[in-house]
Amino acid sequence: MVGEETYWFKELHTQDAGILLRGKVILKKKSKFQEILVIENPTYGRTLILDGCVMTTEKDEFFYHEMLVHLPILSHPNPKKVLIIGGGDGGALREVLKHDIEKAVLVELDEEVLRVAREFFPKLSSSFDDKRAEILSEEGTVFIKGTKELFDLIFIDSPDPVGFAKELFTQRFYRRAALVLNEGGILVAQTESPLLHLDLIREVNQNLKRIFPFVRVFLTVVPTYPGGLWSFTMASKSSLPHHPLRDPPSDLKVYSRETHIASLSLPPFLENVVA
Amino acid sequence: MVGEETYWFKELHTQDAGILLRGKVILKKKSKFQEILVIENPTYGRTLILDGCVMTTEKDEFFYHEMLVHLPILSHPNPKKVLIIGGGDGGALREVLKHDIEKAVLVELDEEVLRVAREFFPKLSSSFDDKRAEILSEEGTVFIKGTKELFDLIFIDSPDPVGFAKELFTQRFYRRAALVLNEGGILVAQTESPLLHLDLIREVNQNLKRIFPFVRVFLTVVPTYPGGLWSFTMASKSSLPHHPLRDPPSDLKVYSRETHIASLSLPPFLENVVA
Repeated sequence: MVGEETYWFKELHTQDAGILLRGKVILKKKSKFQEILVIENPTYGRTLILDGCVMTTEKDEFFYHEMLVHLPILSHPNPKKVLIIGGGDGGALREVLKHDIEKAVLVELDEEVLRVAREFFPKLSSSFDDKRAEILSEEGTVFIKGTKELFDLIFIDSPDPVGFAKELFTQRFYRRAALVLNEGGILVAQTESPLLHLDLIREVNQNLKRIFPFVRVFLTVVPTYPGGLWSFTMASKSSLPHHPLRDPPSDLKVYSRETHIASLSLPPFLENVVA
Repeated sequence: MVGEETYWFKELHTQDAGILLRGKVILKKKSKFQEILVIENPTYGRTLILDGCVMTTEKDEFFYHEMLVHLPILSHPNPKKVLIIGGGDGGALREVLKHDIEKAVLVELDEEVLRVAREFFPKLSSSFDDKRAEILSEEGTVFIKGTKELFDLIFIDSPDPVGFAKELFTQRFYRRAALVLNEGGILVAQTESPLLHLDLIREVNQNLKRIFPFVRVFLTVVPTYPGGLWSFTMASKSSLPHHPLRDPPSDLKVYSRETHIASLSLPPFLENVVA
């Protein structure tokens, strides 16, 4: 199968709706945790697929990584230490290190994903060797229990809440994460599609509100993700501003002062669920 | 095929990327202009497919129709007469008639689409019998050449710019449309996906700017459309406000004062193309 030029990859987002991508198979292997597939699709570029789910594509990854990272970082008055749980492709880390921060720890469960990112996704993993980055392969939940460090931002850049990633969406995990946040720190999680997973967004929101007085949902678009529209949820014990607190890094494709505010402007059908 | 319970519909958005929808086939017929397929998909509901392209689904149509209609209507100080070119499913008309307007003319090329909308999409076509609505089946270009009426808003709710719809994206058509606009009138067109059809958006923008001094692009998300993110372009000889001029109708799912402004906040990669 590897080397096959016209492999049709199919991902079902529900039992009866999904996407199709044709491409050359670059890699297919089983790690200790999951099946890793890399295809080269003419429309979306190189595509990372874990256990049959598209994680990221070269063409549309900026929608996800820029909004996930810059909006919360620019909502924090003075971020210095950042933790990323998951995010083994490196995209979130790359965006984090565009800011003047001192240290970013990336904790990816699957070291094979780190290896694949380094070899096949150089644009995403371009910050793995940055001196401010510390790359670990272990379970995020275990790292958080064991660490003595405190962070200004924690990004939970996880896969869908099935299998080993399920724990990352629980109140128990959020409580533990809160313990390793500095005062004024912000926890951020990817929280799936408002169109297809509205119940999950509601549940995460309720779980976070039991721990953090300030919780905000914000949106982006990820064409290759289920439902197209995508949500993140951030939470803090300090109030969260409605506007960015500083200028963004230059040369971004989707994040700007205007799209920061736009991203926080929820459609009524979603606002009603998280208000 | 009609009645088949588990038909897999496949639409390619490019030669190598597309969507899959499984559903019961409700109707399949050829009209004078195109092949009309209606399927019932458990995730997206009843789905209208013309010549192999998803036009609208019950589940996500509100993203498209609410943003297409309310943003431009609420950018006009006093809209009374509205023209819709295309839009045979009735969704745009339904949203238009939520406003205090005197008359809306819907000009759909294919009368078979009107019939199918009436029979199979009652939620979309619910305004066909409104006293303020006039429903015609003829070519939009021909109507515009022949009409003696002037309109405050013209919505070009067309399919993709291929085949018979191609003319609706030309400068020649925009010039003719400008002649049937009242002073201060606004022309609005659906202009495809910023991710996959950026060249088209640029071209439409340039064409419109030769005729109208004020041109603005705005965005929505349509999960079942190519690229997920979707664009509209509006143009006027009068300046276009950045905010809605009046309160929106109640009970909308995606349009609000906040999402109006968000929709006009373009990501830098698109802003650079249309600025």
